[in-house]
Amino acid sequence: MAILRCGISMSLDGFVAGPRQSLDNPLGEGGEQLHNWAFEVRTFRAAHGMEGGESGPDDDIAREAIRNIGATIMGRHMFGPGDGPWGADPWKGWWGENPPFHTPVFVLTHHARKPLEMQGGTTFHFVTEGLHAALDRAMSAAGGKDVSLGGGAGVIQQYLTAGLIDELEVHVVPVLLGEGARLFERTAGRQTAYECVRVVASPSVSHFKYRLRGGG
Amino acid sequence: MAILRCGISMSLDGFVAGPRQSLDNPLGEGGEQLHNWAFEVRTFRAAHGMEGGESGPDDDIAREAIRNIGATIMGRHMFGPGDGPWGADPWKGWWGENPPFHTPVFVLTHHARKPLEMQGGTTFHFVTEGLHAALDRAMSAAGGKDVSLGGGAGVIQQYLTAGLIDELEVHVVPVLLGEGARLFERTAGRQTAYECVRVVASPSVSHFKYRLRGGG
Repeated sequence: MAILRCGISMSLDGFVAGPRQSLDNPLGEGGEQLHNWAFEVRTFRAAHGMEGGESGPDDDIAREAIRNIGATIMGRHMFGPGDGPWGADPWKGWWGENPPFHTPVFVLTHHARKPLEMQGGTTFHFVTEGLHAALDRAMSAAGGKDVSLGGGAGVIQQYLTAGLIDELEVHVVPVLLGEGARLFERTAGRQTAYECVRVVASPSVSHFKYRLRGGG
Repeated sequence: MAILRCGISMSLDGFVAGPRQSLDNPLGEGGEQLHNWAFEVRTFRAAHGMEGGESGPDDDIAREAIRNIGATIMGRHMFGPGDGPWGADPWKGWWGENPPFHTPVFVLTHHARKPLEMQGGTTFHFVTEGLHAALDRAMSAAGGKDVSLGGGAGVIQQYLTAGLIDELEVHVVPVLLGEGARLFERTAGRQTAYECVRVVASPSVSHFKYRLRGGG
């Protein structure tokens, strides 16, 4: 059965993005440090159109994360900066003409917009009917494959609180950001419904994988 | 030069104790899970008067944590439950007649009390003059050795914010507590002054060691 999977990099002090996200700092100030480990590994680099990269345990984790993914869900702030209506020349994502998703992507927003087809198999769909609707549409589009839940923190918190995430993998990096978007708050403690099923660690990142008890 | 060192076990969702600390739950509800890894290793067991236990990387970390420690600082809630005046038959700590510290221990409290000498080299001193005074007294008592800072979260936050912790090691366990005492809050972001100097991981715990930049 297809499931909803979420993988997210987190600083040791609990943040999945730095403070003051902006056009210059899409991941917030200092937030790019959360993803250094990913930029080192072959699978992530290939998905982003870059050559080279390391193989090994971190790459195995990255490869597992994108394997059998048929659709993606993300929040508006992962898709782009700002809020409000889209305007005449709307934002097309942080990732250029060939985004690294290569699946249909369902962007949660309060502002309707026509689908946006990019290169490489990524089409952004804009969902205004809330998280359940986005999940239903993503599951349909995935055609039996799993759905990947991106960020940001707020979207993950909502899906976690609603009990809709089947697998959650947190990549803890030894960075201390001091402030930013905290992952584990506003979840009503619902993370206690998860059990750890695997820990894989390297000097640059520790991967903690959880599964919803009785879920999946 | 002697330094102030702090080692603390933290759940993946950021808590160093569970909620609702009480006589029955000195570490808060579910909080004992934070320390399962320690109870498995030889050094920690020996310090608590227990036999056996595993050797290996986690035990090496535990041994390093108690090596060259000449005094200990802790908050009132690590010493015992409750607040307010000590009363006629005052609390003597959670640990019985032979506490696992085997050094002078300086307990931060708002309520004065005479020193309490226990077996095995542990004497509890009660400090009402605040964190700097406790550190000064502990450093003197340590006689050139390092000082260990225990919990709880509030005491660590205060020392961290004051820039007084030279080495901080966070032992992240794959438990999700959902609520409790969060370590990285009320610190004014001062943890960004630390750099990671080592990560050691096993399936049961990942140890992230930090050092104050330019400190120590």
